[in-house]
Amino acid sequence: MIILGIDPGTAIMGYGLIEESHGRLTALTYASWRTRAGSPLPSRLLSLHDSFNRLLEQYTPDCVAVEELFFNRNTTTALSVGQARGIVLLAAAQHGLPVYEYTPLQVKQAVVGYGKAEKVQVQQMVRSLLGLAAVPKPDDTADALAIAICHAHSFTWQRRMGELQ
Amino acid sequence: MIILGIDPGTAIMGYGLIEESHGRLTALTYASWRTRAGSPLPSRLLSLHDSFNRLLEQYTPDCVAVEELFFNRNTTTALSVGQARGIVLLAAAQHGLPVYEYTPLQVKQAVVGYGKAEKVQVQQMVRSLLGLAAVPKPDDTADALAIAICHAHSFTWQRRMGELQ
Repeated sequence: MIILGIDPGTAIMGYGLIEESHGRLTALTYASWRTRAGSPLPSRLLSLHDSFNRLLEQYTPDCVAVEELFFNRNTTTALSVGQARGIVLLAAAQHGLPVYEYTPLQVKQAVVGYGKAEKVQVQQMVRSLLGLAAVPKPDDTADALAIAICHAHSFTWQRRMGELQ
Repeated sequence: MIILGIDPGTAIMGYGLIEESHGRLTALTYASWRTRAGSPLPSRLLSLHDSFNRLLEQYTPDCVAVEELFFNRNTTTALSVGQARGIVLLAAAQHGLPVYEYTPLQVKQAVVGYGKAEKVQVQQMVRSLLGLAAVPKPDDTADALAIAICHAHSFTWQRRMGELQ
């Protein structure tokens, strides 16, 4: 199973493609797309949509995993992230890919085993679980891989539970 | 000049196409797209994107006008509207259409001539300015027409100012 994890944003969008096979996780590709600062928002969204499509032409993920977002205060950020997130959900639907959403708490629990884990702990676990030489940079890339791992674990767990029943 | 006004939302998205010719405004078509309640968000966004594209196959607007949004409190709404708004901005960029943004205050000033106008006053002016028999329903449709009128007025005003200089 190939999972595409996405950390949406209009200025920078992290992505991480991992393969889960017999409980083993491998990173296929991961990085962040940056859009030109100062360029109009519609162009930035178009650039992200194009990048997303190019990635899906190269790889054929089975699903997309994104964070389910909650904002306490900053509505401007919520609107901005919402716009980028809309592009991801649309692109997934255009490719017929199911989308799975996880809360930050679920991601931490799945990756570190502890819901209150610090960002740096999550990043170290991402590095370790995928057997990478270094923590992926920037944070957006590591976050995208973390959400992909979260889905892999959640999916494996659900499959095992199904086998037990 | 043909202007497409959009009032973005994931459950319902209002649109209004108006033509401005020698200071005269005509409504070409206006309505709201509704997405299926309970269907997954990616499908709803895909449906909106498809509807938007179909509209642009039928009509050839010169530009798109949307409200510049500010949210004081509700971040959940901001995220949701952001997702729908992202689809609109993407679709506009995919068709090479410029996007103009106006604040609710600018829309009220342009349509009613008074920034603190009530919703019902805006709707009555939309009806009157476009010579419609009745106020367009639902509110999303009327709001989409209002933002299109706002751009028409703003554009005409800027053109006149240019001629005076």
